[in-house]
Amino acid sequence: MKLATLDDGSRDGRLLLVSRDLAQAVDAADIAPTLQAAVDHWWSVEADLRSRYDALNRGSLAGAFDFDPDRVMAPLPRAWQWLDGSCFLSHGELMQRAFNLDPIDGVETTPLMYQGAGDDFLGARQDIPLPSEAHGIDFEGEFAVLVDEVPMGCTAEQALGHIRLVLQVNDVSLRALAPREMKTGFGFVQAKSSSSFAPVAVTPDELGDAWRDGRVHLPLKVEWNGQWFGHPHGGAMHFGFHQLIAHAALTRRLTAGTILGSGTVSNADRSVGSACIAERRAIEMIAQGAPATGFMRFGDRVRMEARHSDGSVLFGAIDQRVVQAGAPCA
Amino acid sequence: MKLATLDDGSRDGRLLLVSRDLAQAVDAADIAPTLQAAVDHWWSVEADLRSRYDALNRGSLAGAFDFDPDRVMAPLPRAWQWLDGSCFLSHGELMQRAFNLDPIDGVETTPLMYQGAGDDFLGARQDIPLPSEAHGIDFEGEFAVLVDEVPMGCTAEQALGHIRLVLQVNDVSLRALAPREMKTGFGFVQAKSSSSFAPVAVTPDELGDAWRDGRVHLPLKVEWNGQWFGHPHGGAMHFGFHQLIAHAALTRRLTAGTILGSGTVSNADRSVGSACIAERRAIEMIAQGAPATGFMRFGDRVRMEARHSDGSVLFGAIDQRVVQAGAPCA
Repeated sequence: MKLATLDDGSRDGRLLLVSRDLAQAVDAADIAPTLQAAVDHWWSVEADLRSRYDALNRGSLAGAFDFDPDRVMAPLPRAWQWLDGSCFLSHGELMQRAFNLDPIDGVETTPLMYQGAGDDFLGARQDIPLPSEAHGIDFEGEFAVLVDEVPMGCTAEQALGHIRLVLQVNDVSLRALAPREMKTGFGFVQAKSSSSFAPVAVTPDELGDAWRDGRVHLPLKVEWNGQWFGHPHGGAMHFGFHQLIAHAALTRRLTAGTILGSGTVSNADRSVGSACIAERRAIEMIAQGAPATGFMRFGDRVRMEARHSDGSVLFGAIDQRVVQAGAPCA
Repeated sequence: MKLATLDDGSRDGRLLLVSRDLAQAVDAADIAPTLQAAVDHWWSVEADLRSRYDALNRGSLAGAFDFDPDRVMAPLPRAWQWLDGSCFLSHGELMQRAFNLDPIDGVETTPLMYQGAGDDFLGARQDIPLPSEAHGIDFEGEFAVLVDEVPMGCTAEQALGHIRLVLQVNDVSLRALAPREMKTGFGFVQAKSSSSFAPVAVTPDELGDAWRDGRVHLPLKVEWNGQWFGHPHGGAMHFGFHQLIAHAALTRRLTAGTILGSGTVSNADRSVGSACIAERRAIEMIAQGAPATGFMRFGDRVRMEARHSDGSVLFGAIDQRVVQAGAPCA
């Protein structure tokens, strides 16, 4: 199934089913008003959603309309919990070499993960409002999963069965603010503004063979202002998403609708490029002694998309612009 | 006003108004079904809530019933955003001295803050289920504020006007897990299980003179298994809550219902004791070379309460037990 959230002016939007080819959509709010409601009651709504999804794909559904990715919010416009990993080890290794950082103990055995701010996600085509270019504006191309309620102490094996949806994310990062926050040991607050999500969230079966071992085995193609920037492969993720879930659930249960991210997709093979600017700059620093690439400027666009190996669409594309935030009013 | 959330079996409970003396309560779900709904629509519901609250305090309200703190959830059972500071500098200084840590640069000018897990708060009298005593189970007595929607770039001065409610928190912390997580720079995930909240949340005016400069100028009395543990004073908070809000809103807006915590209350005056075990252990390490006090055991109780200077009740008391979590099922 493919699910999206229509921007109807409300805070949590309205649930849509979207056809496999992303051409058509149909309202599903009579089954579950929002994606959060669908995940809260997954076992009682799944069959009805699947039945309507199948009809939509057959082209036999009255009420279907053209799907417009400009009119949707993030599939889950806000999450009770957003936990983001850093599970592509080649990324961390490059950052360490470039900045002469001490290696982080145990990254091969214990997932790196931070609590993110999940209260205000952006849609795939929404502008990213930020206060200052001096903050070092960067994109991060990632995959993520959304779970139903996970009990405390859930094992990695059990966790696979709690994955309801797979998503594609732009985890916007402000690189000039991150080093101070990492140094405190308290993790990121200011350095992670609102993340953005591809138009549709998909059930794992939509990935076919590309969903194995709790990983998305597909390349993520990233373009910056229309130029190729990278197409690193998601299969290189050191931990599977099921292991991230078990890690997060060691000392607490996770509410239904919790989203867990992979961290920026990164491969040891340099020829595939990168999914974030910071990594390209690190490669430049290692090779040439200094970064040659700057961070994003207001007006810049980033496009991110993962497709099936046959070229057919999957999540749809993130394609958005960074803009200067307006002055706040009290 | 004093607000609480009745545990009616639903995930977000049902809004109650509670009398100033915490003796009586009345249903307020017809005005706003939940505390989140009240905060989402504060300007349209505040007058009706205040009018009913005043009638409740006059004792003239049909439908009022005895308030039972055993029947309430956390005032906000889950928050879209839970950000916790560490704003009592004497606490950080003691931890640094005891563990020979490097001082954190800029703690006097930039608030220390981490993203916490706000999706599953506990009520004041609920048991705290945890998997293992070996994790170093600790309590942390704190104050917190709940805001309405805060725009990106909000100044500290503007932020004062966004504080809708003041709360009292037990930020349960697992001390054996924290050092590894701090060392990664990514902050706390496993080391911070679900936090608990005192029975009622109060509007700032309920604090009278004790609400000044964005701080709660009252001692927080902490007892562990019925024994005095400390009564450090909230007025020693180095940053006011308005400064924490401005810090968090630098690069993003904060959703209505975001809660920001002060960090464990701590004073330089040792005679007032501590609001967490880790701090007492640090004092013992500095004085005697080794900690004498152990962490919590299953079955232990912690009680935390802040009262007005005349002894009258304010938030009600947190009074809860740590218990072993049951084995999870898939």
